[in-house]
Amino acid sequence: MGYSLEDINYVEELFERFYSIGAIETGGVTRLGYSETEDLMHKTFFKSAEELGFTSSVDQVGNGFISNGDFDEYYLIGSHLDSVVDGGRYDGVAGVLAGLLVMKWAKEDNLKIPLKTVAFRCEESSNFGVSTMGSELITSGNGSDFAALTGKDGRTLGEIFKEKGYSFKPEIIKGVKKYLEVHIEQARVLEKHGEKIGIVTTIAGPRRFKYHITGKSEHSGATPMNIRKDALCGAAEIILEIEKIGLEESVLHSVATTGVVKNMPNALNVVPGEVELQVDTRGIDMESLNRMENHIYEEGKSICRRRGLQFIRERLGGSDPVEMDSKMQDKLEGVIEELGYPYRRMVSGAGHDAMKMTRICDTALLFIPCKDGISHNKNEFTDIASICDGASVIYEYLKGDFNLREGED
Amino acid sequence: MGYSLEDINYVEELFERFYSIGAIETGGVTRLGYSETEDLMHKTFFKSAEELGFTSSVDQVGNGFISNGDFDEYYLIGSHLDSVVDGGRYDGVAGVLAGLLVMKWAKEDNLKIPLKTVAFRCEESSNFGVSTMGSELITSGNGSDFAALTGKDGRTLGEIFKEKGYSFKPEIIKGVKKYLEVHIEQARVLEKHGEKIGIVTTIAGPRRFKYHITGKSEHSGATPMNIRKDALCGAAEIILEIEKIGLEESVLHSVATTGVVKNMPNALNVVPGEVELQVDTRGIDMESLNRMENHIYEEGKSICRRRGLQFIRERLGGSDPVEMDSKMQDKLEGVIEELGYPYRRMVSGAGHDAMKMTRICDTALLFIPCKDGISHNKNEFTDIASICDGASVIYEYLKGDFNLREGED
Repeated sequence: MGYSLEDINYVEELFERFYSIGAIETGGVTRLGYSETEDLMHKTFFKSAEELGFTSSVDQVGNGFISNGDFDEYYLIGSHLDSVVDGGRYDGVAGVLAGLLVMKWAKEDNLKIPLKTVAFRCEESSNFGVSTMGSELITSGNGSDFAALTGKDGRTLGEIFKEKGYSFKPEIIKGVKKYLEVHIEQARVLEKHGEKIGIVTTIAGPRRFKYHITGKSEHSGATPMNIRKDALCGAAEIILEIEKIGLEESVLHSVATTGVVKNMPNALNVVPGEVELQVDTRGIDMESLNRMENHIYEEGKSICRRRGLQFIRERLGGSDPVEMDSKMQDKLEGVIEELGYPYRRMVSGAGHDAMKMTRICDTALLFIPCKDGISHNKNEFTDIASICDGASVIYEYLKGDFNLREGED
Repeated sequence: MGYSLEDINYVEELFERFYSIGAIETGGVTRLGYSETEDLMHKTFFKSAEELGFTSSVDQVGNGFISNGDFDEYYLIGSHLDSVVDGGRYDGVAGVLAGLLVMKWAKEDNLKIPLKTVAFRCEESSNFGVSTMGSELITSGNGSDFAALTGKDGRTLGEIFKEKGYSFKPEIIKGVKKYLEVHIEQARVLEKHGEKIGIVTTIAGPRRFKYHITGKSEHSGATPMNIRKDALCGAAEIILEIEKIGLEESVLHSVATTGVVKNMPNALNVVPGEVELQVDTRGIDMESLNRMENHIYEEGKSICRRRGLQFIRERLGGSDPVEMDSKMQDKLEGVIEELGYPYRRMVSGAGHDAMKMTRICDTALLFIPCKDGISHNKNEFTDIASICDGASVIYEYLKGDFNLREGED
């Protein structure tokens, strides 16, 4: 174990500072990206960093940085401080605090590693329907399409950017040697296997679809079974096919989920005439993603043809899988073995800021366990010790990497 | 054909009088039971009847009657004038106008048949969640449970009854020799077979259930397929079982429909953790109803057990099937054959006021076709000629029955 009880107390105290920000009646928090609540999270983060003697800065899109010196090249650690609506307190925050803790240790150990920690803006799609916005903007340099997006309070992102003086054409971030992110797993794999760290090999690419199934709304009492065009029964067959296809492809780490069902008219005495399904497929293997896409489409068409229903597919977009840097994975594995933590290499099904950072530098993503895999609600919980585990791994890695690189110079 | 072009024009003119009452932007009508809009429907009905020289009266619960004389015993024809939210213009109205037309013919033919036509209050469950309220009250004499029901405008039925001077303990209706109702079929059976009249043999009894299926809400990207507890996939299997069970029992004229699905949290990136299904089973055979109830429960439990989900059933109530008078059916069949209309004996899957009237007198229910089986929305359409067909059958039946009974006296 690379940390003390004092470290745990320190991180716990930081959590307390954030605790009430965006707190709502349910017990959860709502800290939407580019909202005043997110601003307050950033301010609180800066204040904590400044207490330790670090300097803070804000880039052209509102991402918040803290730094332990003035340098051209640096290691960047980070994650985000926004949340979903009625979300939990660990998703994102864990990674930012891990960064701060690493910087604190380096300072205490008097190590001259050039370090910054970033809190990216608006990682969650909850406010504007687009995720990893802050990291997208400073790794692509172009977010013109975002200006027209309207947030939950009715304001457009364009209005907010104008007010804040942010830019949709920011400079691309420079000087980052490597990017490291700690994030809660948001699933039960580590917990189930009693492991402390997951080294992410690939972040799965999502492909999302809407399927529109149309039959005939009729009186549920008056319409005989054999002449019905029940859109919901067709949709039920499709939901089960999607599950089956996901299971078949799961050997390649793919998943397929029907998350949204809109049943119309959704009345007890009416045979459903129209159903919309929203489906999320994810995978790290392009061929598997293609197969799922085609297979679901073919099965959907065939089920609907047999039932006399109409079937229409609408693509909701997505992105390709992203590989994490393999050398960093190997080195992290060495560090973790030295620390004696049980670990595994694994795939990230969820998207994270790390996926955008691969555009500009070598990138690593580490998972820490979260209780029962619960995320995006008030019951989200990760041991503070797990955050310290993640920070230790990064710290040991950086010490090795920086010495190595310094030696190379 | 027992009617003239003039009759069709007359009924069309009556429809025009009702047309704008409760009309909404969609093109449909909202004429909720015990609302001011339903009051206006009743007033318009009375006015039309008074123009023909009939007298109107209102009973202790607001049901509207028109009468062609003063007598102790009479034939009662009728239906209702309320509608669902955004409903059509034929459901109910067709039966009331058929009654008025029969009374008009009897007057023109100078026949001394004692006749009343009733417009029952609040046949649809849309306002208070309870259907056939007006006919229930005057055939049971007790509606104490209704007082606390709250309507769509926030007022309780108790408040409305007090204001209007209605009673929840009305006298049971007296003097009805026979009750006859014409109603649109609300399905496609007659249309499909090119038939003009359906003689209803039995009104199916509904049994309604809520099924609660509980699994685990998890991140759709991060949670591997093989450790999920996806409530929606379990629900999909149950929906298909319900359809299968309905199909198996359809030889006994049963139906089983999943009309409502509530999927939680219904988000694209979350494995559904909880699903509520609302299911409507109906049948004319008690054993079939029992089998469906038990079979769905057993299959639901078994599917959920296999998937590690929780399954809870909640009964939403229902009622037993109701037989129409068999002698009236036979006589109506004779009349219809004489008129030369293609017809069939059939089951009513939907509930109607006729089902309550069987408590106090011999009762007959006749169906007329409606276009594409569409009901409960603006596209509901029935030929005016079909309403005249229904009225002709009743008129010829009454002439025969009244002569027969008079002869018996």
